Order: sequence, then C-alpha cells, then structure tokens
Amino acid sequence: MEFLEALKWRYATKRMNGNEVPQEKVDIILEAARLAPSSVGFQPFHIVAIKNKELLAQIQPIANNQPQIAKASHLLVFAAWDDLTEEQINEFFERTARERNLPAEVLEGFRSNMVKIFGGMTKEIKFEIAARQAFIAFGFALAAAAIEHVDATPMGGFNGPELDKLLGLDKQGMRSVVIMPIGYRDEAEDPIVKMKKIRRSKENLVIEMN
Amino acid sequence: MEFLEALKWRYATKRMNGNEVPQEKVDIILEAARLAPSSVGFQPFHIVAIKNKELLAQIQPIANNQPQIAKASHLLVFAAWDDLTEEQINEFFERTARERNLPAEVLEGFRSNMVKIFGGMTKEIKFEIAARQAFIAFGFALAAAAIEHVDATPMGGFNGPELDKLLGLDKQGMRSVVIMPIGYRDEAEDPIVKMKKIRRSKENLVIEMN
Repeated sequence: MEFLEALKWRYATKRMNGNEVPQEKVDIILEAARLAPSSVGFQPFHIVAIKNKELLAQIQPIANNQPQIAKASHLLVFAAWDDLTEEQINEFFERTARERNLPAEVLEGFRSNMVKIFGGMTKEIKFEIAARQAFIAFGFALAAAAIEHVDATPMGGFNGPELDKLLGLDKQGMRSVVIMPIGYRDEAEDPIVKMKKIRRSKENLVIEMN
Repeated sequence: MEFLEALKWRYATKRMNGNEVPQEKVDIILEAARLAPSSVGFQPFHIVAIKNKELLAQIQPIANNQPQIAKASHLLVFAAWDDLTEEQINEFFERTARERNLPAEVLEGFRSNMVKIFGGMTKEIKFEIAARQAFIAFGFALAAAAIEHVDATPMGGFNGPELDKLLGLDKQGMRSVVIMPIGYRDEAEDPIVKMKKIRRSKENLVIEMN
C-alpha cells in the first residue's frame, strides 16, 4: 500500500521552493524511466535533464510562464523521435543479439518484419507511437519521484516547437511531448497543496467483465 | 531502491501459468491507474478489467494469438475516449467545484477557456491527447503490478477495431490503445524469463544540460 500512499501524496506542484534534488534521487527517477518498457523495446525517445538555471528561466515563458519551471531543481523534457528509421531498428536488433549472446540470424525474421511494418507507416504515425512510449516512461519517472518524495509537475502546456528550437531537439530528429519539473513544494505559496485530489470514482473509470 | 528492483524484476511475460491474481492486488493495480495524473485532470479513458475466461479466449486471436492472454488472470484494456465534448468538460468542472467546495464561478474562466481550446481541436487530436493520458495510467498500473510481484505484459500488438467491437467499446465512444494481461509467469515455459533486459544506456538515453 506504500506505493498508493506515495501516489496520493504527489500532486501537480505549482510552486516550488528552489531547493535542489540530490543527484542520487534524480538518478533514481531517470533510471525508472530508462527501465520502462516500450513497443518492441525500441525506446524511441530521449530525456533531456536540465539543471542550468539560465536555461530554466528561458523555458518558463515557453511554458505559459508557470513559476514552477524556474524554481525547479531540474526539468525533465521527454522528447519522442520524429521518425523510426531502418538504421535505428537495426541498431536495436544488433544490440539485442550482442547483449543476449545470440547469433544475429536468430532475430533476422523478427527484424525484417519490423523493418517492413514500420517502413509502411507515415512519419507522423511513427512519431505518435514514439510519443506514447515516452508517456509510459514519463509515468514511471513520476511514480519514482513520488516514492522518493520528490515533487513533480506533469506538464503538457508548453510551446513544443519553441522548446525544441531552444534545446536544439529539432535538429536531432526529436520533438518534446511532455515535461516534468522536479523539486520541492512550497507549501506556503502553493494554493493547490491543500486541495482535495480530483479523480473519477473506480465505478466511473473501470468496466468489469467477470 | 526497492522500486527499481521491482522494475528490474518485471518483464513482458510471454507465458503465464493460469493462476489467479487476488482481487486485493488487482484493486491496487487499478487504484494506481486511477490516481495517475492527466491533462487538466480529465482522465479521458476507461479501463476494462476482464476476468471472464471465455472472453479472454476470444481475445487471444485478436492479439496475434499470444498465449499469455488466455492464461492471464485478468486482462486490462486501456480505452481512450474518441472525443472530448463540452458536456464531458463541464462534468469535470462541476465535479471539481463540488468536491472542493468551490463556487462554480471560481472555475468559470478556466472552464470556458478549456471549452474553447478543445472545441478548436479535431476529434483525432483530442483522441491522441486522450491516448497519451491513458499511457501514463498504463505506466502507473504496470509499476504497481511490479511492486506487487504480479506479472504483466504491456501489449500494443492487437487489432484495435476488432477488440473494440467485441467489447462494445466502439458504441461507447472509446478506442482501445494498449492492453495488459496480468497473472503469474510460467518460468519453465517462458523462453524470455532468463534473458537479459535490453535497455539503452543512460548515456544514450539522457541528455544532461547542467
């Protein structure tokens, strides 16, 4: 039940106090995201971990001027790949064969099938699949932060193209899809902190077929 | 570190042994998904929790005939809403005002802004936003399962329209986006269980800007 308690403790923190999250905890949050599963195993995204204060101040106006950005310890930007190329697919299968000590032939049917399937998709569909995988990792990172009692704000409200340009992601074939400032809540300043968490009831969310 | 150990323990289980997951643990997994954050707080998805064995057997051929479906204790289907209507937006704000004991006027500016923003989007964009939110909840559910030492298989490989038709989701304005059989691994039969987990290195996944 400890996990559920952590999930009840967390909330979308709107005011942070500027304190730094110890590197050890940042690493746990990133490691949780790294361990997240993804379709086939491709992990078609990067995570930009920004600690630089000047950069955080520059990002705040790009994110609806939300003050938790500049007062965060770090900002984690989840950036999905805007394509999935044959080279990227091949790299995954080569790495898998190497790390599992398998001859490449064992995976050849699987690999060529994936090249065929993804080769038949538009870039936009591949990007959307990539974005969804990034959201699983985002969930894992958010859960890890809660367990470590590090505050975090899941944020979709920002100007993606501007952020991508500022961070140079556009030139690396990525698009930011969701961001997460991490830090510590400022209880005195955050009007949200004492408010009831609003969620649909189980009856309203879950359809049981027994 | 316990959380990371659980995430290392979990893997995409390909063979399950048919044992039943106690209702208490199923409820923890569903509760984690319920507590997941979502854009604005709309939670624009449902979770179908299927225990019925005949239904699971019918779903197996729709999901590439993967045997873990029929041998799962439950199958969780994450179904995103295919639209976000003004009525649904209003329901959220009415519920929020009621549960937080706020006069409706306090939220009126926020509400009308959301109606305007979502009203200007195509159904397809609203669906994609909904799907991404479902993936955060999917991540939370997967993390909860790992902590409870319940096996789970994240699966994107299934025929969505066929599954929606079978479960009647199409008539309820939903589309299944990802599914998760939960149960217990069959160590003797699953070739994957002893294989090394393949993940990109931290250096390859994370871009640090200090």
